[in-house]
Amino acid sequence: MNGLPRHVTYRGTRSLAVEFAKPAPPPPGHVRVDVAYTGICGTDLHIFHGEMDGRVDSPQVIGHEMSGRIGQVGSGVGEWGPGEHVTVMPLVWCGSCPACRAGHSYICHRLTVLGIDAPGSMQNSWVVPAAALVRLPRDLRLDHAALVEPTAVAVHDVRRADVRPGEKAFVVGGGPVGLLIALLARRSGADVLVTEPDPHRRSVAAGLGLAALDPSGDGLADTVEEWSGGAGAAVAFEVSGAAAGVTTAVDALATRGRLVQVGIHPLPREVSLYRFFERELTLLGARLYDRRDFEQAVGLIAAGEIPVSSLISRIEPLERAADAFEALESGAGVMKVLVDCRSAAEA
Amino acid sequence: MNGLPRHVTYRGTRSLAVEFAKPAPPPPGHVRVDVAYTGICGTDLHIFHGEMDGRVDSPQVIGHEMSGRIGQVGSGVGEWGPGEHVTVMPLVWCGSCPACRAGHSYICHRLTVLGIDAPGSMQNSWVVPAAALVRLPRDLRLDHAALVEPTAVAVHDVRRADVRPGEKAFVVGGGPVGLLIALLARRSGADVLVTEPDPHRRSVAAGLGLAALDPSGDGLADTVEEWSGGAGAAVAFEVSGAAAGVTTAVDALATRGRLVQVGIHPLPREVSLYRFFERELTLLGARLYDRRDFEQAVGLIAAGEIPVSSLISRIEPLERAADAFEALESGAGVMKVLVDCRSAAEA
Repeated sequence: MNGLPRHVTYRGTRSLAVEFAKPAPPPPGHVRVDVAYTGICGTDLHIFHGEMDGRVDSPQVIGHEMSGRIGQVGSGVGEWGPGEHVTVMPLVWCGSCPACRAGHSYICHRLTVLGIDAPGSMQNSWVVPAAALVRLPRDLRLDHAALVEPTAVAVHDVRRADVRPGEKAFVVGGGPVGLLIALLARRSGADVLVTEPDPHRRSVAAGLGLAALDPSGDGLADTVEEWSGGAGAAVAFEVSGAAAGVTTAVDALATRGRLVQVGIHPLPREVSLYRFFERELTLLGARLYDRRDFEQAVGLIAAGEIPVSSLISRIEPLERAADAFEALESGAGVMKVLVDCRSAAEA
Repeated sequence: MNGLPRHVTYRGTRSLAVEFAKPAPPPPGHVRVDVAYTGICGTDLHIFHGEMDGRVDSPQVIGHEMSGRIGQVGSGVGEWGPGEHVTVMPLVWCGSCPACRAGHSYICHRLTVLGIDAPGSMQNSWVVPAAALVRLPRDLRLDHAALVEPTAVAVHDVRRADVRPGEKAFVVGGGPVGLLIALLARRSGADVLVTEPDPHRRSVAAGLGLAALDPSGDGLADTVEEWSGGAGAAVAFEVSGAAAGVTTAVDALATRGRLVQVGIHPLPREVSLYRFFERELTLLGARLYDRRDFEQAVGLIAAGEIPVSSLISRIEPLERAADAFEALESGAGVMKVLVDCRSAAEA
């Protein structure tokens, strides 16, 4: 780290650059946030792989899971002041499309996601609309607060599933979001089983008291059958994004079971609609979060209800963002990787 | 028709036989029903095509949409008497599997469907458990009452969708069940649009005051867009059982829209899970009906709320059941075909 302001830009497939960036003053209605930490998410990996070039400009500053302090406030932003600890709900909606008019602005037809469709948080200094700010308690560690965004995803998914006490909840995929979902489903009173191929991730799950199975063995279906007393799971969360994950989740469900689709599948997947018929299953698409989910995530982390430190595998300085992507890409041995975006003066 | 008791048996792919059958006295807890009419359903066509040989014995008496009169009552059946008009909810469940224990006995893990897994109603005289009987008002025409079963399917599907007044409901497939769903969705206050390739079925829909489009044209997506004010449909019913029908239904849905899967897809289908994510869609598998649906269907038909006579294309005598299957198979120009199962004495 040094005194020069910097940002990380996506420059095309598998290419990231750390560059000098002149801080901009915030326009009216905006604030400049001095970013503390930015987490790297599965979506960032998709961008890095060039799979989202239809949506992501090049060069573009990426990153959308973050924490920081307000550096400067634009005109007309009375409710915020410099130094306040914040995170950003990185969504800007149109307010006029059918989804917005129906009260679902977080899935606006013309949604802008900061860090994907517009500049993101992997920089020292980020200008965002004040409306996107979410307050953080002063005593919440900023590295922990970088996990508010993925926790909000999990809050939204568990809410969408309407998990009830005593239900069997099956989570396919034990990465950070999968384990956050598992933890929150357990907190809702469910009996949770996770399946995850990576042994390190299974060991993290085990450390959190979560039963975690290897899906590559033969015994998965039998174990689910036994665990659920022959009935199947009341709820499943498909968090893997893999074709096999969909089949595993569908096959595990009980009569009238609900499957929350969390992982993103860019291509159509083969789905056993016969099983949906036979057992009257429900599939619930889930996307992002609304402000209620975000604020609940802040509250849960601030209250120590989410063991976020167990999910943070490493923290890399901004200059080494590319290494952080490579580490995450290898998959094995890491959960959440944070990029330390603080300038020398803060760190 | 003549005085000899007869039944229609499935004898293997594309083979039906009309044979003499000695009427059996009903065992304890059972009744013998003198069948009046049996409708031919899409499932019966699947059986006829040999697609359900894994489940349907040969020879097997088929048929499960019916009306009739009680002929003889077995011991221990105090609440029923000869001459009463009845239909049969053709399900027998185990009472002990997880689905039954959860209150969903109509989708029992070991469900027996009469007419598929056990002898059906395409005969003069049918012995069924008394528990499967559903009372018909004496003044309800028995040909009309043969449509209680498909109407119960539609009641169940519209209930599963939770159709609300003012919603846009899109029905993919305008056969008997598709049009019954369309009529019931309209009765729930929805604005209904049907898509159906067969011109005769579209004309039947139009005669019932239902807007019906040809899906083969280019303009379907634009028409749905315009009809729904750019939002998409709040609810869609996939009744076609065709791969293209699934895509058409998914693409038509608004943000947070619900898709009820009614058509049976024996093979996995490609489904755009991305669209489920992007719009937070819900897919609801739907199967059969419970007694509440069945009794509601009786009430609706008896009250003249369902124009069943518009859906009955022809009635063939039992002897000509094979011709009735051929006519229905051609698809064009027919909706519901009934088989007149009455003995000479009744007709």
